[in-house]
Amino acid sequence: MTELEKLGMAAKSAERQLAVAGTQKKNEALEAIRLALIASKERILSANAIDMANAEKSDLKKSFMDRLLLTSERIDAIADAVGEIISLPDPIGEVVSMSDRPNGLTVGKRRVPLGVIGIIFEARPNVTVDAAALCLKSGNVCILRGGKEAINSNKELVNIMRDALTSAGLPADCVCFVSDTSRESARELMSLRSYLDVLIPRGGAGLIKAVVENASVPVIETGKGNCHIYVDSTADLEMAAEILENAKCSRPSVCNAVETLLVSSEIAADFFKLALPRLEKHKVELRCDERSMELIGEKAKPATLEDWDTEYDDSILSVKLVDTMQEAIEHISRHGTGHSEAIITKDYTNSQRFLNEVDAAAVYVNASTRFTDGGEFGLGAEIGISTQKLHSRGPMGLRELTSSKYIIYGNGQIR
Amino acid sequence: MTELEKLGMAAKSAERQLAVAGTQKKNEALEAIRLALIASKERILSANAIDMANAEKSDLKKSFMDRLLLTSERIDAIADAVGEIISLPDPIGEVVSMSDRPNGLTVGKRRVPLGVIGIIFEARPNVTVDAAALCLKSGNVCILRGGKEAINSNKELVNIMRDALTSAGLPADCVCFVSDTSRESARELMSLRSYLDVLIPRGGAGLIKAVVENASVPVIETGKGNCHIYVDSTADLEMAAEILENAKCSRPSVCNAVETLLVSSEIAADFFKLALPRLEKHKVELRCDERSMELIGEKAKPATLEDWDTEYDDSILSVKLVDTMQEAIEHISRHGTGHSEAIITKDYTNSQRFLNEVDAAAVYVNASTRFTDGGEFGLGAEIGISTQKLHSRGPMGLRELTSSKYIIYGNGQIR
Repeated sequence: MTELEKLGMAAKSAERQLAVAGTQKKNEALEAIRLALIASKERILSANAIDMANAEKSDLKKSFMDRLLLTSERIDAIADAVGEIISLPDPIGEVVSMSDRPNGLTVGKRRVPLGVIGIIFEARPNVTVDAAALCLKSGNVCILRGGKEAINSNKELVNIMRDALTSAGLPADCVCFVSDTSRESARELMSLRSYLDVLIPRGGAGLIKAVVENASVPVIETGKGNCHIYVDSTADLEMAAEILENAKCSRPSVCNAVETLLVSSEIAADFFKLALPRLEKHKVELRCDERSMELIGEKAKPATLEDWDTEYDDSILSVKLVDTMQEAIEHISRHGTGHSEAIITKDYTNSQRFLNEVDAAAVYVNASTRFTDGGEFGLGAEIGISTQKLHSRGPMGLRELTSSKYIIYGNGQIR
Repeated sequence: MTELEKLGMAAKSAERQLAVAGTQKKNEALEAIRLALIASKERILSANAIDMANAEKSDLKKSFMDRLLLTSERIDAIADAVGEIISLPDPIGEVVSMSDRPNGLTVGKRRVPLGVIGIIFEARPNVTVDAAALCLKSGNVCILRGGKEAINSNKELVNIMRDALTSAGLPADCVCFVSDTSRESARELMSLRSYLDVLIPRGGAGLIKAVVENASVPVIETGKGNCHIYVDSTADLEMAAEILENAKCSRPSVCNAVETLLVSSEIAADFFKLALPRLEKHKVELRCDERSMELIGEKAKPATLEDWDTEYDDSILSVKLVDTMQEAIEHISRHGTGHSEAIITKDYTNSQRFLNEVDAAAVYVNASTRFTDGGEFGLGAEIGISTQKLHSRGPMGLRELTSSKYIIYGNGQIR
């Protein structure tokens, strides 16, 4: 039996106990975790210091180092997030539907945990606690496998959570941790069908692709976001410029930021006059098709075919003129990743058509794509944004971490 | 570009048109299919005769031949099933939830088709029409790949459906068909990620295992059913015997038939007196643990360890005595496939505990496991019974063939 199989067995043995634990017990464990995180700041920070020192030696990118870094304030924020999860309603046990059949059977559909959830993520120690807390609240055992650069921070965080679980009377194995960060262990986790009900990759495109291609465990794909804004010929151009600036510049590195602007050729010249100064302010690099290049001039670079399929996650925007809404919808259908797409329009028919025909997790009329987020949609905290159509699409909150079972009350019925 | 990629592209091009087709148009196409099936009986029967002749040469099992055979009556039944699907409500477009956020955004969740559904099945020509009709009604394009033994029947059925689609003004490619029945084409279909949103295997355990292990497309596992009945010490023994007979004998070959009987040792002797004559009537073979063997005697065979994990799909029942309900729940947890599990009891606490602690798609109190079925649960026709926890669990009707998209109405909101 491999180490991972042992971990899988430990997870399975905790699964049933957690599934029937009840909201109060789960909240007590979460509160114990929250308090322990705050009380153990020093331990966490010194473990994180080792990771940071190792990372510096490896000459990693600044943005990477920033995501890896923990500070006293960041630990507070992590603990606060656990507090928020405590305050969210428990989805488990909710009976979604129940009705009597003609033969007298009462058939109900009850929300239950998925079971054991594997989470593969990169070197962001905040994800370790966040994911564990969301799984715990939704009655799911988690098996966490974080990036090797955060191994010391993660080990410490997991130990703190496991101790807190025990103190609250739940099995420590409600939170399992893969300490082997080799590629082989990742591969093995992806095939751990006997123990894992679902695998959720959280991280960059490379990680998600690797998981999707190699996993035999069911996977929920998250986070690919090549998002578009289409400025219709009837748009309120001032509103369009404000939304574009927000969607591109408020946080360029996230998946719900816009990557491509599609502009109706009828209003493109007027729109650019309003929009370009806003983008220049944030030093956004423009990559343009021929026609928009003519209007924008030398400030822009010519777009290559590749640009239309690129999620920059950076202060770069590709720009294309379209003559009809049909053209915009077709461009989105060909190049979009099904994350978030927006139309800015004053026209009723166009707004409805865009909502109907664009196939994405979130389709917007006259609002920024940046709202695609569990908190913004009223789901509370989220474990990720699904860009696949199976199980769950869009922001995934606690409910999306559940399955269902039919419960049937009879009095001797046979068929 | 391979033949399958061409098929995938054809399916994709039909997808958007079908997604926005509207209920009336889809029902008209289904009615055209229904009428065409009845009008084309002769063509279908002669194609089926070729398949049957080939099958006879290959010396296939009687039960296999029976599933492959079409008759005038069976074609009527297939057409009737299409008629039933017409009468079911269209799940597409339903807004599952909609509410206003504090910032004035209106966020709604609307049911949309999954997109392109691949269905891999064995030599049952009725599945060809059934699956296509369910996909069509739920706005999904399907790519069908049936068993090689039914290739002539399937080709004919698919041609009839494609002609009917065209006559109703929908693209023929709403129903796509893989005519290459080689293993290689099956493998390729399992990896057709760019074109397929989900793959549903329908058939025996071998087929499902092969798909689950090899697919990189998301899969919904169906149909594994190692189901149990636990007769509690407080059970109404007459009721328990009737339910057991029904669950084992009314149709032993289906996935919701019971395979293992767990009996409380307190009432086992009394229960066997009532139950055994009922099972003998149907010539059910019993495979017993040591203690039940002592009570039942020579009529039974000793069970091997393998028996507890076997879905017989046949007139065989494994039998085991348990001293506590805990023991029964643990046995089910270890050997069940998460399909359908039943307790027969008069005790309130035991009934609730069984419903809570047994983890399966359908958990019954005092009723036969045979009710796990889309029609019986009030979902209308079903495409299969999911035994996984992701996306959908238990009988899958039209709603379970849908995904969702968030539609967001704003008036200039930025974040």
